[in-house]
Amino acid sequence: MSSVITLTTDFGLSDGYAASLKGVILGINPQAIVIDITHFIAPQNILQAAFVLFTTYSYFPEGTIHVVVVDPEVGSDRRAILLSTGSAYFIAPDNGILSYIIEESYSRLSGLNNALSDKFDLTETDKSIQAIVINDPKYWLETISATFHGRDVFAPVAAHLSLGLDFAVFGEPTNRLHKISTPRPYVDISGDIIGQILHVDNFGNLITNIRNQDMPQKKLNIEVMGQIMEGICRFYSQKKGLIALIGSSGYLEISLSNGSAADFLGAKIGNRVKILVSQ
Amino acid sequence: MSSVITLTTDFGLSDGYAASLKGVILGINPQAIVIDITHFIAPQNILQAAFVLFTTYSYFPEGTIHVVVVDPEVGSDRRAILLSTGSAYFIAPDNGILSYIIEESYSRLSGLNNALSDKFDLTETDKSIQAIVINDPKYWLETISATFHGRDVFAPVAAHLSLGLDFAVFGEPTNRLHKISTPRPYVDISGDIIGQILHVDNFGNLITNIRNQDMPQKKLNIEVMGQIMEGICRFYSQKKGLIALIGSSGYLEISLSNGSAADFLGAKIGNRVKILVSQ
Amino acid sequence: MSSVITLTTDFGLSDGYAASLKGVILGINPQAIVIDITHFIAPQNILQAAFVLFTTYSYFPEGTIHVVVVDPEVGSDRRAILLSTGSAYFIAPDNGILSYIIEESYSRLSGLNNALSDKFDLTETDKSIQAIVINDPKYWLETISATFHGRDVFAPVAAHLSLGLDFAVFGEPTNRLHKISTPRPYVDISGDIIGQILHVDNFGNLITNIRNQDMPQKKLNIEVMGQIMEGICRFYSQKKGLIALIGSSGYLEISLSNGSAADFLGAKIGNRVKILVSQ
Repeated sequence: MSSVITLTTDFGLSDGYAASLKGVILGINPQAIVIDITHFIAPQNILQAAFVLFTTYSYFPEGTIHVVVVDPEVGSDRRAILLSTGSAYFIAPDNGILSYIIEESYSRLSGLNNALSDKFDLTETDKSIQAIVINDPKYWLETISATFHGRDVFAPVAAHLSLGLDFAVFGEPTNRLHKISTPRPYVDISGDIIGQILHVDNFGNLITNIRNQDMPQKKLNIEVMGQIMEGICRFYSQKKGLIALIGSSGYLEISLSNGSAADFLGAKIGNRVKILVSQ
Repeated sequence: MSSVITLTTDFGLSDGYAASLKGVILGINPQAIVIDITHFIAPQNILQAAFVLFTTYSYFPEGTIHVVVVDPEVGSDRRAILLSTGSAYFIAPDNGILSYIIEESYSRLSGLNNALSDKFDLTETDKSIQAIVINDPKYWLETISATFHGRDVFAPVAAHLSLGLDFAVFGEPTNRLHKISTPRPYVDISGDIIGQILHVDNFGNLITNIRNQDMPQKKLNIEVMGQIMEGICRFYSQKKGLIALIGSSGYLEISLSNGSAADFLGAKIGNRVKILVSQ
Repeated sequence: MSSVITLTTDFGLSDGYAASLKGVILGINPQAIVIDITHFIAPQNILQAAFVLFTTYSYFPEGTIHVVVVDPEVGSDRRAILLSTGSAYFIAPDNGILSYIIEESYSRLSGLNNALSDKFDLTETDKSIQAIVINDPKYWLETISATFHGRDVFAPVAAHLSLGLDFAVFGEPTNRLHKISTPRPYVDISGDIIGQILHVDNFGNLITNIRNQDMPQKKLNIEVMGQIMEGICRFYSQKKGLIALIGSSGYLEISLSNGSAADFLGAKIGNRVKILVSQ
């Protein structure tokens, strides 16, 4: 069992919220190594958290426990979930925040497509993914607030799991998990590929939902916010001005040399990106 | 002895200040586990640091050493203090920043009330609280700057303490500690409870100085910035709009569903909150 | 071999970039202790990163490995460098970001002055400094992106080095390293010392390039942005208003009591600071 536990939250760092999770974890497992993925998810932005976690988690050692607390419905009857993919664990509210991770496992199998449902059915997978509803309070803090399950439930469960407790002890198995609609690129009537901006990073790079493998193997142009970029660059400093390239997570990305593409273009999450295949 | 050391400062994270404390600590105790509570206290805001530390520290393991560096008078004759509550250690300037923590120990005893003094007298407590003036340079860095005792004095003392050195070796005992006025709720002439906003968190929630145990056990309304909230909710997503609830630290809190109550109301630290008991 | 690895980057903390370095490192050396110096270097600001690293690294234990990723030319033919100073290791792009650190080693020797060159020649040093071009992919991640060598090259090399691998295995020795012009104070025609602002810290303190040892041993006045400060204070709260003092890193610093000198003066990195020696 790895003793690495990561945290992905919308807590920011000016309160003691993130620290209190670490205190709770170290009280249960003094050997745990707690690493922040980020605490700067925009408040309650489940889709952003899902994407940042998805593009980061695979760089952690096998068996790492990823705690995700973007949890607008905390205290309601939304369920808390412990998910195992076989190589990593995830502790999160059942609000769709693990959708990219679960979809990735689906796509290992051929022929499955439940794109239209708002639930995942884990019985349709190859059984490498298993999920538990966290409902045994034995592994929680003694006093549970109604508003901070990250500290009172998720953190102690992560710590106990990191000590080697069996996955199954934390609650009841479940095969149905909430799913959010993750925006996918599509081909329009003229044959162009239409995607959108999924994330704007610290440098103002625009990260799209178009993956490397979605791109046609030919010379092509990219259009975003009325600007055309010719061809795909290999690295940031290759050309001056706006460029398109495949970023470090394998997604098409728009970048501005020595500046912020987001500021320059006035571009935001959700804006359209077009690959001009038809020309 | 726990080897967990926490840091609460107003350093921010864009300089190397917080990191230099960690470097110093690891040079003395390579096994120390250093956890940030926060480095985003507003510059020199002692009251804010006192509150964030107070609502976070108890989630850390017994024996944790809490280093607090919000220290506008560094280099003057303000004293540096090492405090033990029996279950935790605190290393801080003697500027009142530990007031909530010391007051909590007082309130374990019956009948004590030194609310009007600007000093604590530890001889009035149950002796679980002990304090040392840190004045033995043997445990400091060799070269002491006049402006950065966090790095040159507090960090090495914390590291040596985490190695198991006796509390008493770091300096002379003291029973008088500086105290800041921590704003308390009161009952006005009509019987309403008047409190104030102590902290605005990352979500724009307004955390007041009215504790759960201060609240009358009846249905009541809350007034803040001219707005009335009816009743106390149990969790954030229970109702749309502005709500009042008891937050995760046990204080009355004003929250806005899907938004920032602070921005919506234009509310700030120090603004008045009224519990309408008289209606 | 110390197992402490520090990170200095312009990644910010809202993406998963910094975390992915930590995941990679822990996957190779589970005992590594990874400490953030800062991730808030302004995007691509090599000089700022050089200064923050230089004023922080010496507080870390002997043998600490400092990973620096401010790397606008990643993916081009810029080289990646592993530098040893005898007491610390540095892994960085060869873009001048280690200039302060290398210059410090030079100044231990008498008579050396290659101020006008844009390269360092390490054969002119006392041989305590050695450098390797990181070019053996054996110690990198299996898949190397063109845009994120911090994660794919620097982090795994740091982790392998922290396991005790020999410095020499990671590539070929080199004696020529890229150098940036680090602004130095000079004496003008009237005998005054002219320096400039190198860094503005979290408190709005203006940190200049004038070191304690550059200052004349006499009573003197400081001029910045048209304001005159009389004499050098010892600590921040010594006087009200604008003061000059020697900061915790040994550089002349301008500070405003209870405020930000940067905001008050409208001062920025690069602005001139004058020591009025001639009066």
